[in-house]
Amino acid sequence: MKLSAGVEWAIHCCVVLSQADGPVPAQRLAEFHGVSRTYLAKSLQALSRAGLVSSTEGRVGGYVLDRAPRTISVLDVVLAVEGEAPAFRCTEIRQNGPFGAAPKECLRPCGIARVMAEAENAWRASLAAVTIADLAAEVGTLFSAERAAAVRTWLAQ
Amino acid sequence: MKLSAGVEWAIHCCVVLSQADGPVPAQRLAEFHGVSRTYLAKSLQALSRAGLVSSTEGRVGGYVLDRAPRTISVLDVVLAVEGEAPAFRCTEIRQNGPFGAAPKECLRPCGIARVMAEAENAWRASLAAVTIADLAAEVGTLFSAERAAAVRTWLAQ
Repeated sequence: MKLSAGVEWAIHCCVVLSQADGPVPAQRLAEFHGVSRTYLAKSLQALSRAGLVSSTEGRVGGYVLDRAPRTISVLDVVLAVEGEAPAFRCTEIRQNGPFGAAPKECLRPCGIARVMAEAENAWRASLAAVTIADLAAEVGTLFSAERAAAVRTWLAQ
Repeated sequence: MKLSAGVEWAIHCCVVLSQADGPVPAQRLAEFHGVSRTYLAKSLQALSRAGLVSSTEGRVGGYVLDRAPRTISVLDVVLAVEGEAPAFRCTEIRQNGPFGAAPKECLRPCGIARVMAEAENAWRASLAAVTIADLAAEVGTLFSAERAAAVRTWLAQ
């Protein structure tokens, strides 16, 4: 089970956007994180489709967060990039083979699917409990006020 | 984030093996679950590498669980098939770009990596809390004694 690299980029981008004074061009976000603009574009598009960021065109165009950072959870970002489907997909193999269960015996999800769904719920609940604002606050404790201001100026260029 | 289909097959196989009277040939496990023997072989090999099952050759050869079902967690099976690595891999992009953090500022894992690791831990703890014996007990409540006996006889053929 692997999350795509785009998850890391997308979360970092949201934290950076939460600190910016205005729209940040995709090129700046790519340079800031030292990642390929082409690859990053896919993550930004995913965030946009999920309504977490929006982009504006023009001289001062770029990406902005579309919601307050304290209302965007890490889970929101992960699902935007990875899709809403759970990691485990039950293909109902209990209904296969010479002793397969009849459909009427399968009204309740398979015990294995339920165990996997519970784990997925625990994972999602953990990610839902942390917001972009929480992450930004932590970064804030590491960056001096001068460095944070320099970053904001650079992002706006 | 997707788990491979082999996870579903491997868990079902472990539950079936926990109910068998003796070694079960790979062909029988494939037929029982209505899945390709070729694909299933990969899952069985993964379980074998992880020390969860072993196989014996010969006329009455086949797969057996190598540990008591109550000592094999769903997590053991999932990690056997998917590998031990966590779903999220931090590539330390906080150290990239014109404002990248210096290595000495990065002695502690990135806040984003820590959030992802906590969620992974919650997921793993949930899967670790359920054993193959638990799953088998639940299947037992659905199958009549006659049907369970018929399955055991068929598996041994």
